[in-house]
Amino acid sequence: MIRFENLDTLPAFSRLRAAAPVKLSDVLTPERIRTWWIDHAADMRYCYACAPVDEKVLDLLQELADESQLIDKYRALLDGAVMNTGEQRMVLHHLARGRLGKPVVWQGEDKEAFYTRERRKSADLARRVHTGELRGSTGLKFANVVQIGIGGSDLGPRAACIALSRWAQAHGRAFLKPWFISNVDPDDADAVLGALNLAESIFILVSKSGTTQETLANEMLVRSRLQEAGLDPDRHMVAVTSATSPLAGNPHYLESIYIDDFIGGRYSTSSAVGGVIISLAFGPETFEEFLQGAHEADKLALEPSLRQNPVLLDAMIGLYERSILDMPCTAVLPYAEPLARFPAHLQQLDMESNGKSVTRDGRPLPYRTGPVVFGEPGTNGQHSFYQLLHQGTDRIPLQFIGFLENQLSRDMESEGSSSRSKLLANLMAQMLAFAIGKKDSDPNKTFEGNRPSTLILGKRLGPQQLGALFSHYENKVMFQGFAWNINSFDQEGVQLGKVLAGKALHGMRTGSSTGDSLLDALLAAILGQGSSTHGGKV
Amino acid sequence: MIRFENLDTLPAFSRLRAAAPVKLSDVLTPERIRTWWIDHAADMRYCYACAPVDEKVLDLLQELADESQLIDKYRALLDGAVMNTGEQRMVLHHLARGRLGKPVVWQGEDKEAFYTRERRKSADLARRVHTGELRGSTGLKFANVVQIGIGGSDLGPRAACIALSRWAQAHGRAFLKPWFISNVDPDDADAVLGALNLAESIFILVSKSGTTQETLANEMLVRSRLQEAGLDPDRHMVAVTSATSPLAGNPHYLESIYIDDFIGGRYSTSSAVGGVIISLAFGPETFEEFLQGAHEADKLALEPSLRQNPVLLDAMIGLYERSILDMPCTAVLPYAEPLARFPAHLQQLDMESNGKSVTRDGRPLPYRTGPVVFGEPGTNGQHSFYQLLHQGTDRIPLQFIGFLENQLSRDMESEGSSSRSKLLANLMAQMLAFAIGKKDSDPNKTFEGNRPSTLILGKRLGPQQLGALFSHYENKVMFQGFAWNINSFDQEGVQLGKVLAGKALHGMRTGSSTGDSLLDALLAAILGQGSSTHGGKV
Repeated sequence: MIRFENLDTLPAFSRLRAAAPVKLSDVLTPERIRTWWIDHAADMRYCYACAPVDEKVLDLLQELADESQLIDKYRALLDGAVMNTGEQRMVLHHLARGRLGKPVVWQGEDKEAFYTRERRKSADLARRVHTGELRGSTGLKFANVVQIGIGGSDLGPRAACIALSRWAQAHGRAFLKPWFISNVDPDDADAVLGALNLAESIFILVSKSGTTQETLANEMLVRSRLQEAGLDPDRHMVAVTSATSPLAGNPHYLESIYIDDFIGGRYSTSSAVGGVIISLAFGPETFEEFLQGAHEADKLALEPSLRQNPVLLDAMIGLYERSILDMPCTAVLPYAEPLARFPAHLQQLDMESNGKSVTRDGRPLPYRTGPVVFGEPGTNGQHSFYQLLHQGTDRIPLQFIGFLENQLSRDMESEGSSSRSKLLANLMAQMLAFAIGKKDSDPNKTFEGNRPSTLILGKRLGPQQLGALFSHYENKVMFQGFAWNINSFDQEGVQLGKVLAGKALHGMRTGSSTGDSLLDALLAAILGQGSSTHGGKV
Repeated sequence: MIRFENLDTLPAFSRLRAAAPVKLSDVLTPERIRTWWIDHAADMRYCYACAPVDEKVLDLLQELADESQLIDKYRALLDGAVMNTGEQRMVLHHLARGRLGKPVVWQGEDKEAFYTRERRKSADLARRVHTGELRGSTGLKFANVVQIGIGGSDLGPRAACIALSRWAQAHGRAFLKPWFISNVDPDDADAVLGALNLAESIFILVSKSGTTQETLANEMLVRSRLQEAGLDPDRHMVAVTSATSPLAGNPHYLESIYIDDFIGGRYSTSSAVGGVIISLAFGPETFEEFLQGAHEADKLALEPSLRQNPVLLDAMIGLYERSILDMPCTAVLPYAEPLARFPAHLQQLDMESNGKSVTRDGRPLPYRTGPVVFGEPGTNGQHSFYQLLHQGTDRIPLQFIGFLENQLSRDMESEGSSSRSKLLANLMAQMLAFAIGKKDSDPNKTFEGNRPSTLILGKRLGPQQLGALFSHYENKVMFQGFAWNINSFDQEGVQLGKVLAGKALHGMRTGSSTGDSLLDALLAAILGQGSSTHGGKV
């Protein structure tokens, strides 16, 4: 029987509060550094030697995970329980990469079969484009694929495409060059379209509802540019949308590939939202491998013992840092330039999922939930914000990610070592520097240390590793959401802005009052001399 | 007489602590929205209507600014005082854009004349490249300029080049296409070099000391690729370095342009670090206009009344949010895609400057200093982390930036409004949604509001506006650093990692012990079976 209870009502939580906090310099030994590792999916490993825990805290975190019934809740989710309570929906992004629970049927349709069918449609589309069977309206082969989408239709797929593009070159899978247009700011679309031969470009319009304001505005802009270039827009555009949206089965698209309400935007890279562009850019095999890596990590996440379950452990360490040690932020630091935009994806994934103030059944919460997440690749970050991480007045836990080999095998020796060696040396140095610190007679050169970190380490970043990383953070966020007793799968916090933006736009268009005196005043202050005069000015 | 005292010793600080916190829904009126604006440099305006202050708090912040002698300290800095106490250096980035204080002479050299001379050298270089007088080693005109640098040699110049590239197209000033290589991860350089015709590319090597590990490694890599392509590397590379570095006056560079120790990396976009690439990419006039905008903002920052000084006010509001209201983070939200990487620059600028735990003379501090800074452009961020900003359990102050017009004038109407209108409507909507919130019988749809913000608004983003924005945040960080009584101009927190990375690299190269048992264990755990076997493996 699954119970949904607030974190602070669980016995283990009080015991954790009472446990002595760990000082890393007291506990960190060579033995701990060598042995506090867990095998992860896709041949990766997870190191928690520099996490702010000892055996006693780990035992209590295990108790807390058990009392929170995290694995039971995960199993229920996999079996199709309505875990998105606010919107009364199932949560099925795991199923898009392989089934781990009971078959899930909705309105007479097997959802696994649905995801498989749409994936095949993407793969077929990609093959037709790659062979040249499907070409642009002037007969040229497609060389570019441009995704038009925002939020989850942009951040995850973009992070994935950046992560895979050099790997694809090294593996003969760089079929089309991927691009993205997301912002409603027309300077975004201009920059992308200016760099492309439109006759060789295929566009993917991604909007579940078919009504996303930014995405439709950018579609209009793209269609008009295609027309100006003498092209037939309908022959350059694919839709990824829900079966009930205005874009579904619409003759103005080469193809409509379907998504559904059970995979939220920030979890949708495993659906057609990521699948179409990854298949077009790097081949359907690459997308399959991405899903395999994610599925393997999903499976591993079912293990009840956190000492053998890297994502459960990572989630509980993060929870401990946030809810017991009161740390307001988390930094994600991939020592891998291909993961340059992975932190931006995690920002959405984590902050949109767990930035909540009410329980899953809508009661106000008495404790803090999701942290602020930020990050940049190492070593770049070292020359940027690491000063604050080392010597600032807040402790910020760090999530390192690293790989032993380059994506492209070429490298260069300088001063006796390769660039890859330098990258890894810096990663190791930072882990220890943060944990241990350094005493100095000059306080300005003193590092107090005790700044915790964890590490996910792989051999080389390819699609399987990337899939496993996507899964890792999705499941981490899910476990933490379960423990905080919140719904990690809705996003009511974005609604109010949409309503007010609609009013503001109406006021700008008509020059009449918005019915909101503060908004009228802001329109007047920003656009002109009074709400009646600014219509059409911008 | 200037005194350096801790913030919490000032009378106004205690009075601020005792003042009742402002609730935005209680104070926000149409009148306040219309009138709480200050003119900023470059025809921009600053709005503080949604800041968490009232007239009483503003009066106390003015007292605090006066007691902290912020303007006096700024004047002293301009006059050449040794404000970088840790490194015993003057702080002269303002002087690089125009003199506002006494002449500054060092070792017999007038520093203003030095900056002017090096700027002329950049301008001459750019003109020779633009006219085709200076060409690549096979006689082709240069079409690309690639900056090799990391930290401040990368983030500020990169943010500026992204911000200006579409503006330059619209104004016939897109001379060379700018690129950047920063990370020691060779996948970074590979991605850039793979996209370029090397025969048409000029490289700028930026390293003040001439010894930055990442930058030298990338230089080696670039030189070797140039050689493989049958080019003469010496005829494709310019150095930006200090006059005493090994790169100075070195025949392996087309030209050496000088920087000095008085402009720190994160403040260096106004020096040759930003000037050479901006002049090459967009013309020397564009760089001059950038400096003019910054200089105008620097001048405005001398005004003692914070109600007439937008940067002083912004600094004091941020200080109030951090030190009185205990907010650990700040989000920067430019509603302008060209400012996509401006938050990454601000992350370095703010967190490296004010992420400190000791006073300017090296005593431990009893209060918290610089916040975590993060951000992404709107409307993208709305579809990402705004959920947490609206409904998360921490209040996070917001810094909006917006513009009334596009950089490129083309736009598209959809559903009765232009994309620019939609962008502005969303910006206005968010300001009010955060400030006022919304009651709802469903707690999941309730927005508590009272989430403060400020806005910098311009007509269009060009080089003068960009320069003013760079100046705004540099001076904000400076004023806050003065108020916290810290040295915002050194970065001792990056040293320990460098030392340990050197040890790790030596261990990897030689296979021998690093002399640090924890580091030996980490090397073994990450690279192989024991520290004696991993030499040369990577």
